[in-house]
Amino acid sequence: MNFLLINGPNLNLLGDREPSIYGLISLEKIESNLKQKALQEGVQLESFQSNSEGAIVDCIQQAKGQVNAILINAGAYTHTSVAIRDALLGTKIPYVELHLSNTYARESFRQKSLLADLAIGVVSGFGPKSYELALDGMLAFLKSQKT
Amino acid sequence: MNFLLINGPNLNLLGDREPSIYGLISLEKIESNLKQKALQEGVQLESFQSNSEGAIVDCIQQAKGQVNAILINAGAYTHTSVAIRDALLGTKIPYVELHLSNTYARESFRQKSLLADLAIGVVSGFGPKSYELALDGMLAFLKSQKT
Amino acid sequence: MNFLLINGPNLNLLGDREPSIYGLISLEKIESNLKQKALQEGVQLESFQSNSEGAIVDCIQQAKGQVNAILINAGAYTHTSVAIRDALLGTKIPYVELHLSNTYARESFRQKSLLADLAIGVVSGFGPKSYELALDGMLAFLKSQKT
Amino acid sequence: MNFLLINGPNLNLLGDREPSIYGLISLEKIESNLKQKALQEGVQLESFQSNSEGAIVDCIQQAKGQVNAILINAGAYTHTSVAIRDALLGTKIPYVELHLSNTYARESFRQKSLLADLAIGVVSGFGPKSYELALDGMLAFLKSQKT
Amino acid sequence: MNFLLINGPNLNLLGDREPSIYGLISLEKIESNLKQKALQEGVQLESFQSNSEGAIVDCIQQAKGQVNAILINAGAYTHTSVAIRDALLGTKIPYVELHLSNTYARESFRQKSLLADLAIGVVSGFGPKSYELALDGMLAFLKSQKT
Amino acid sequence: MNFLLINGPNLNLLGDREPSIYGLISLEKIESNLKQKALQEGVQLESFQSNSEGAIVDCIQQAKGQVNAILINAGAYTHTSVAIRDALLGTKIPYVELHLSNTYARESFRQKSLLADLAIGVVSGFGPKSYELALDGMLAFLKSQKT
Amino acid sequence: MNFLLINGPNLNLLGDREPSIYGLISLEKIESNLKQKALQEGVQLESFQSNSEGAIVDCIQQAKGQVNAILINAGAYTHTSVAIRDALLGTKIPYVELHLSNTYARESFRQKSLLADLAIGVVSGFGPKSYELALDGMLAFLKSQKT
Amino acid sequence: MNFLLINGPNLNLLGDREPSIYGLISLEKIESNLKQKALQEGVQLESFQSNSEGAIVDCIQQAKGQVNAILINAGAYTHTSVAIRDALLGTKIPYVELHLSNTYARESFRQKSLLADLAIGVVSGFGPKSYELALDGMLAFLKSQKT
Amino acid sequence: MNFLLINGPNLNLLGDREPSIYGLISLEKIESNLKQKALQEGVQLESFQSNSEGAIVDCIQQAKGQVNAILINAGAYTHTSVAIRDALLGTKIPYVELHLSNTYARESFRQKSLLADLAIGVVSGFGPKSYELALDGMLAFLKSQKT
Amino acid sequence: MNFLLINGPNLNLLGDREPSIYGLISLEKIESNLKQKALQEGVQLESFQSNSEGAIVDCIQQAKGQVNAILINAGAYTHTSVAIRDALLGTKIPYVELHLSNTYARESFRQKSLLADLAIGVVSGFGPKSYELALDGMLAFLKSQKT
Amino acid sequence: MNFLLINGPNLNLLGDREPSIYGLISLEKIESNLKQKALQEGVQLESFQSNSEGAIVDCIQQAKGQVNAILINAGAYTHTSVAIRDALLGTKIPYVELHLSNTYARESFRQKSLLADLAIGVVSGFGPKSYELALDGMLAFLKSQKT
Amino acid sequence: MNFLLINGPNLNLLGDREPSIYGLISLEKIESNLKQKALQEGVQLESFQSNSEGAIVDCIQQAKGQVNAILINAGAYTHTSVAIRDALLGTKIPYVELHLSNTYARESFRQKSLLADLAIGVVSGFGPKSYELALDGMLAFLKSQKT
Repeated sequence: MNFLLINGPNLNLLGDREPSIYGLISLEKIESNLKQKALQEGVQLESFQSNSEGAIVDCIQQAKGQVNAILINAGAYTHTSVAIRDALLGTKIPYVELHLSNTYARESFRQKSLLADLAIGVVSGFGPKSYELALDGMLAFLKSQKT
Repeated sequence: MNFLLINGPNLNLLGDREPSIYGLISLEKIESNLKQKALQEGVQLESFQSNSEGAIVDCIQQAKGQVNAILINAGAYTHTSVAIRDALLGTKIPYVELHLSNTYARESFRQKSLLADLAIGVVSGFGPKSYELALDGMLAFLKSQKT
Repeated sequence: MNFLLINGPNLNLLGDREPSIYGLISLEKIESNLKQKALQEGVQLESFQSNSEGAIVDCIQQAKGQVNAILINAGAYTHTSVAIRDALLGTKIPYVELHLSNTYARESFRQKSLLADLAIGVVSGFGPKSYELALDGMLAFLKSQKT
Repeated sequence: MNFLLINGPNLNLLGDREPSIYGLISLEKIESNLKQKALQEGVQLESFQSNSEGAIVDCIQQAKGQVNAILINAGAYTHTSVAIRDALLGTKIPYVELHLSNTYARESFRQKSLLADLAIGVVSGFGPKSYELALDGMLAFLKSQKT
Repeated sequence: MNFLLINGPNLNLLGDREPSIYGLISLEKIESNLKQKALQEGVQLESFQSNSEGAIVDCIQQAKGQVNAILINAGAYTHTSVAIRDALLGTKIPYVELHLSNTYARESFRQKSLLADLAIGVVSGFGPKSYELALDGMLAFLKSQKT
Repeated sequence: MNFLLINGPNLNLLGDREPSIYGLISLEKIESNLKQKALQEGVQLESFQSNSEGAIVDCIQQAKGQVNAILINAGAYTHTSVAIRDALLGTKIPYVELHLSNTYARESFRQKSLLADLAIGVVSGFGPKSYELALDGMLAFLKSQKT
Repeated sequence: MNFLLINGPNLNLLGDREPSIYGLISLEKIESNLKQKALQEGVQLESFQSNSEGAIVDCIQQAKGQVNAILINAGAYTHTSVAIRDALLGTKIPYVELHLSNTYARESFRQKSLLADLAIGVVSGFGPKSYELALDGMLAFLKSQKT
Repeated sequence: MNFLLINGPNLNLLGDREPSIYGLISLEKIESNLKQKALQEGVQLESFQSNSEGAIVDCIQQAKGQVNAILINAGAYTHTSVAIRDALLGTKIPYVELHLSNTYARESFRQKSLLADLAIGVVSGFGPKSYELALDGMLAFLKSQKT
Repeated sequence: MNFLLINGPNLNLLGDREPSIYGLISLEKIESNLKQKALQEGVQLESFQSNSEGAIVDCIQQAKGQVNAILINAGAYTHTSVAIRDALLGTKIPYVELHLSNTYARESFRQKSLLADLAIGVVSGFGPKSYELALDGMLAFLKSQKT
Repeated sequence: MNFLLINGPNLNLLGDREPSIYGLISLEKIESNLKQKALQEGVQLESFQSNSEGAIVDCIQQAKGQVNAILINAGAYTHTSVAIRDALLGTKIPYVELHLSNTYARESFRQKSLLADLAIGVVSGFGPKSYELALDGMLAFLKSQKT
Repeated sequence: MNFLLINGPNLNLLGDREPSIYGLISLEKIESNLKQKALQEGVQLESFQSNSEGAIVDCIQQAKGQVNAILINAGAYTHTSVAIRDALLGTKIPYVELHLSNTYARESFRQKSLLADLAIGVVSGFGPKSYELALDGMLAFLKSQKT
Repeated sequence: MNFLLINGPNLNLLGDREPSIYGLISLEKIESNLKQKALQEGVQLESFQSNSEGAIVDCIQQAKGQVNAILINAGAYTHTSVAIRDALLGTKIPYVELHLSNTYARESFRQKSLLADLAIGVVSGFGPKSYELALDGMLAFLKSQKT
């Protein structure tokens, strides 16, 4: 199985950016950890990060027919991008929405998600662990679909 | 006369994406059909598609002084992009807003358009035919301006 | 095929009423032009205008089983009439909503339509040309249904 | 000069309907009193009452070119009729909006008027005297226009 | 005793219109059944249907002094007509509001009633049985008033 | 057939509580009257009253597989309890929502019902008679389901 | 009889301030004209103007027991002053609210009045004539009270 | 370490209730699976279910000083209970909010959570797997606190 | 005279729960202090605390005819319970609403009270002293009623 | 210790103004009673009343460094004055907000306070007794600060 | 050239009031610094401060014909005063709105300005430097007008 | 010191675009003027313009550790971009928000800024002079930080 991990704007700053909220671990480290964990589950995980809404849309489109699932931390675009929603809707790849921080505990505009209602599930608030939980959740979902 | 046809994010998926809503015809086919129809009216029609808001803004700016009219299906950016609005406002090229599906019959956030109030007119819901109607409407508008 | 064209309140004033917004052509002229164009497409088009919400409801009800499609410019009732919506819903005749002016560019209460979400499509802003585009759009829709 | 007095739905019940709010005088009496007062000012005043929105629209349209001013107590349609607004807007006859009761002191939906922003002025709350004040206000307005 | 049954716009389509929501029985049948049932309770029931808001206002006004109670299914006008509200308020005849379908389970604009707060009671959702329940409820109310 | 009648908080005060709104008859009397009427229709009616949201949820759950229908006057919990809604939704027993008083004529927070959209129908405003109408309505519904 | 005329902030600028909206006549002239007209009706009219909310409250309080009626053009304080509302409420002197311009045709915050619901009536939009209409309306009201 | 698992109203129906949304596994099975998994992590997990808001508040209070963490699926009370929020706030035990279904994809009132902003994190949409993810997330959080 | 003191959910945690907001004194101490103070005024004060909405409703109902006044700190239920409102409304016992903390300085949902508009008065923000002030206020109210 | 009592607009009318709401006692009497009570607690209380927002701001500023606490019944300015809020915020003197009537039981615009969230506490609804309770509450607060 | 500097309520506290927000410099110092800087640009700058809305309105009126421009820090009245807006509108003197603190970073009611849309420009957040920037901005504006 | 000047979408059109709003000077000219002025203050100023949200995010990230301050005219993205807000928040470089036109005087959606609450200060409405004022304001801020 192939999974795609997408990280949205400013997540490349991880480790640097507001460590009191986002922690000290870098995105590279999170990605490599998750790839290793995925491999143990028999999943080839590709990762992609961009600060550009259009590039994320492109990436999702190209994943069509290539991947079985998407794990997406769309960052700020979670709250503003209908285009990413449409790309996910258009390619019909099942996806999990995830966040490092608890978005409910922050500014009110971070509490609306344009992606959540179409996701398999949502995980937020567990820091880098959110990525692992999202992976586990997706695997469980795919397994339940087979039966 | 020269016209510019702009298609926004995910419209390159046409034919593939949610065929129950968007139909089975590809964007390439729509574009070539429309160019042919335009030619019969003496109009050279150029087409452009991008998933990137910034690229669409660039494209509109470059059209200044080059085209007589714009036909735009801004897709998801219809509902979120003040930047595209500003580009259209700034270049002052007359434009028609068009949609394949009836946006009124979908999610509530698709019912607000940031482009419509400055457009010559709006056409939505007729599938690929919307493109032809938009072309006809723009031609009628330009003709009425001359008199 | 038989089509019904319905014009709502104050559209009988066309030519007279706010020519800067609505143009100089009379409703009679629009109707006769459209009938001619319809005939060329093999469509018998009947027209009806009334200032009364109830009379428009009556007219739609009587069209049941008589016409294949409705083109409706409900004017002010677009924004206030649940009864006309119910008549269209009850008779299940496919219809196109159309407007002479770009309703998005006017008072905010003209931006809500009680008819649009159930329509095949919507055309607005092209002046008298809106009627032709609505006819073309409806014809394309009916053709696509056959296939 | 010719003026038109329009009374909307349920005003024919005057004298009968909720006398604690609307008083005991009948509409006929109010109309004849006002006609007499108008005559003293050199004005021929015609009166019209209907419970039908469409009939009021018809009446306003027919007044075009016939009357110099309209005094209108649109009753319930004040709060719901875009069609009457459009008729007044389309005929461009100056008008005064008037009410017997103080609409501000009643249900919240009576506090929105679809006619007021286009009126010369508004008079409300003085019972039958509101009609006389509306007449006086309109006469003063027309006089001020001449100078 | 005399009762008046009023049916608003599109209820004349009953049997035809959206049978999955409104059932297969015609309005004529509902009316004759209810008249029969009323007679058994010593009540003469007159029925009236119109698609016109103004005609319903007229009908209510003429009922003044003629009937002891009104049963009203105002259909679409339930949600938009201040004029019918005013007529009921002005004539002071006690009335029951009734609906065939459960209005709470439909579009959000069907959940606001301009008539309900002044009614004796409201019955909705029981199909043609709603008419009988409204009659029974009104009879119980009138009986309770006497004691 | 077995029916369950549920009365929510403060309905045990009936006869005592705000008699100008709720009347002088006690809940016990209402219940025994309704049981008798039910028996005549071949229905065994059990009644339950509680001031506790959780106890009402428990009661609905235990009714699963035991009763054919529920008549519920959830009182204050009508407006605040998602848990009771979920219990009704989860057990899938058809139910009628009923109220003694006309909730539309009271505080605005009493005009939102969390139960109504899933109910067969709603009856409100007829005092103790509301219970009988709810029973009749439910019987008619069940009968219509059989055919 | 004694009446008090109160003018709120910036009305001392009349003649100077935005003549396209407020006209060319000065406040002194309006006051002296109105006093003369009042005298003809047997009314002694005192006038007061202030730019200070507190001074207007003081003035209203001192009028208690001294005047039979107040005519008030509270200007900007119409929309913001609960204190003036309380002063009018506390002294229980009947008052008419008046405006030179049609407040409905201006900024949205000018469409809320904190004084209107407690007024006898409201007059707006007739320029200096509004003052005369307010006086006439108040006289009619007081006369109606006597009978 | 000791953890407490709290399940709110109607979750005892699991397996029975709306299987298309909630799946076929019973609550007992979910609880015993989770206890086993917890034990493997060296955690003693107690479980509690109630349909009563007050009983859940009691349970949380009694957990004070007894447990290191709470996993809570508050069901319907997630959206309505300030009291449960206050209990969690008052005992200061860290907790994870979890849901079986994706609450974003359901009724709008299920999209507001009174518990989420104070939680460590939130997991929703993965069916019974949500419980395991919540446990894993909490364990990761507690581990991160130690370092 | 007999008074009833009711404390709602989580107030049994006092002394423990968020001492920076609620202080260090226990509920038992507050109750015994208040009973003593009440006795000095010739008042027998009973106290009741529960985390359950239904139990508080029961308690209020049972107080009917037993107590002259209620002092209630309904805690979280202040903001969510229509049932407690109805119990207070139904028993017609005069009551004072009180809070330890200043609810205006906390989350926005704590600023709406479902009990306040029917209370004699409200006291909030003075910590344990709020109880004494509520008692004094109620005594003054009852005294004023006698004269 | 020195305290300052501030009374806002129209409170000088006490005894006169709406006695059914505000009672028959004059402000002078309330002030002298409170001064006497304050003296017994070792507090010198100065009182100030003005109908002017600016004068109240001046008074608060001058109290800086002169008084230990402020008791303020800002009347109408409670709901509209950011300037008084800023004066209290700027001088940092602790204050209690108090009202004679229960503001929750009146017009909706009286339910928003611009002063309450920064106050030590709020007392409302106890008539003249509210002043004494505010004094007692402030004394208790100051005492609690010392320990 | 002559400029007028207006400071609203509580700005006379500068240096004293919330120094963490407003800094330690006094208003007198700010005024004298600005006058000196103005003189270097050939501008005679007068300054005025008041806590009274009415006094600020008076001051603006008196500036008519005396000054070329106004610099105004209206403090709290920025958010509540239609009267000051009207004075500025009525005198038509160009003005700049300025604030010491960044009003966007404070309470939500400080984010609405009644003066900003009619100002030449707005400067906020730079502490005392805001005054200089406002002066520079106004000078640049006046210069641009001459060309 | 190094400063970064960022200009958002469509600002490259300056001189061309809506000259009545934005003036005739080109962006290149504004940039070179500002660089010169900056140099006089000992500041090396780099400039960047893009129509792409993602490119602006990239640019801000790369500025981390390179520049002491940012001056940003984010144009349309001011109102829609959470991603740019996050980039500024994540790099923690102090910034000033600036606009050529007075955004308060334009469409309502231009009155919400997603960047303003985190900025040092905001300058708007002074045309090209806004850039100089922003520079001066930032310099004053940095100087004040040093002391």
